[in-house]
Amino acid sequence: MLKNRQILGCSSGFVSHRWKPYSTTSGSLSFLSISTCSNPSLSYSFSSSSSTLLPTTTTTWLSSTHRPRFGAFSMSSAPSGSNPDGPSSSVAVQSAGNAHEINFCQSCGGPTKHEIPDGEEKIRAICTVCERIAYENPKMVVGCLIEHDNKVLLCKRKIQPSYGLWTLPAGYMEIGESAAEGAIRETWEEACAEVEVVSPFSQLDIPLIGQTYVIFLARLKTPHFSPGPESSECQLFALDEIPFDSLSFSSMVVTLKLYIEDVKAGKLNFHYGSINKRPGTSPSDIHAYTLEYHLQS
Amino acid sequence: MLKNRQILGCSSGFVSHRWKPYSTTSGSLSFLSISTCSNPSLSYSFSSSSSTLLPTTTTTWLSSTHRPRFGAFSMSSAPSGSNPDGPSSSVAVQSAGNAHEINFCQSCGGPTKHEIPDGEEKIRAICTVCERIAYENPKMVVGCLIEHDNKVLLCKRKIQPSYGLWTLPAGYMEIGESAAEGAIRETWEEACAEVEVVSPFSQLDIPLIGQTYVIFLARLKTPHFSPGPESSECQLFALDEIPFDSLSFSSMVVTLKLYIEDVKAGKLNFHYGSINKRPGTSPSDIHAYTLEYHLQS
Repeated sequence: MLKNRQILGCSSGFVSHRWKPYSTTSGSLSFLSISTCSNPSLSYSFSSSSSTLLPTTTTTWLSSTHRPRFGAFSMSSAPSGSNPDGPSSSVAVQSAGNAHEINFCQSCGGPTKHEIPDGEEKIRAICTVCERIAYENPKMVVGCLIEHDNKVLLCKRKIQPSYGLWTLPAGYMEIGESAAEGAIRETWEEACAEVEVVSPFSQLDIPLIGQTYVIFLARLKTPHFSPGPESSECQLFALDEIPFDSLSFSSMVVTLKLYIEDVKAGKLNFHYGSINKRPGTSPSDIHAYTLEYHLQS
Repeated sequence: MLKNRQILGCSSGFVSHRWKPYSTTSGSLSFLSISTCSNPSLSYSFSSSSSTLLPTTTTTWLSSTHRPRFGAFSMSSAPSGSNPDGPSSSVAVQSAGNAHEINFCQSCGGPTKHEIPDGEEKIRAICTVCERIAYENPKMVVGCLIEHDNKVLLCKRKIQPSYGLWTLPAGYMEIGESAAEGAIRETWEEACAEVEVVSPFSQLDIPLIGQTYVIFLARLKTPHFSPGPESSECQLFALDEIPFDSLSFSSMVVTLKLYIEDVKAGKLNFHYGSINKRPGTSPSDIHAYTLEYHLQS
């Protein structure tokens, strides 16, 4: 069964196409710019706005100073490289790709300019010495939804962002591993739990921050778990006891809601969707989102 | 139905766990290193080897000079930043993350050192001036498998790598867009086709080169398509006419084989899997792979 654009956890819609791939009237490419804001939040704030090329419309996220600039956003109140809506990989947290922070070439150390390369449509950081282009792409966060005795395993975060809030064990996928291997690794690191992945459950993109969550259904190989270095507690929760008011990220809210819906319906599906914050809401409000392109398989 | 570790398109197995998330004997983390080779191929070659931390075993990919070093590989015969087993994003091609090429900090321009940061287990490039850590993560390639009149749409590549070979329209996902939006955009760019995504069809990881392919089933909104700047031809193929000997990438072989199997079985599923080259085979042999962790939903 396929369901398009199901809205979860929200009462008002966001723009249904924040990023338009083409213009049907002109036949040429056009883009809808994405703007962020200068709004501090509990764990992070956006400090600049951005636009892609050939803007036709500007969508205001919150009140903001609009400066067409490369990169989706920067974060000012969290440590450099931190991550507004995602877990960490191991202990350190990573940036989703703040391309406007690319001032120098990683290869030769030359200063960069920010221009549209020949044959492309998007501003990139280009080395003024060796002409290397610095591409920034979304990062994948991989994790496990562990089913055990009709309960699911959650970890209480002992690190920022979202210190003290509950999450599925998850973290950034590394080069050299598959998503399944990364999810198994992160589960071991955060919950000291040895698991086997059973099936893919969800892929949830968060375009604003350049993250994609890939969550697998998994089961414990042995009935043992305990907090790893990044967790203060690990606990199995019955589905009607999941602490939705104390979850860490919108992606966890969506994943767990979809899971509960599937369990109630008696059939576990694979879910794809794109999570977008509702305009006018605080970035720290993990329940203020729309789920777009919701497709099931 | 779930199928674990189905092997497709190969007769011999590769290591089933190239990357071990933990050691059950010691209880501490251990890793299986990944080695690449100095073997030129048609469109690219690997020029160095790599290992992750705490190596317990070394898997030789082909004959190679083993130098423990951060990063999966480098490519020597293709232009800097090119991509051995993936399509391009727009015209320029991107690197999957050659971390050993990170010599300077993108933020302050300071020289980097390659060490294990405190609290982590993997060597990273760390700025010796501002101490910023340069994380490198897998890149997502998004595309569409377009069904039309019991045929699928393929594009003949007019760019390297895999010039002159056939591919599904696909390219690197950008920050600020969802995977579905990226797949729609790439289809427009490569095939001038206006499509609607119908359902997620596959996620195929290629750990060696740090890429993940996400392919959606899609349909033409209008029955029009024509080659974009990166394609020399676009053509609908009946399933028994797909040019498997002239496809561009292993990911396309796997996706199309799974699709044909599903069509024959009368049910389209979502497929997850990890594509690994068989040891002792040429990197340019797109049929020399194993599909691991094959899970369906």
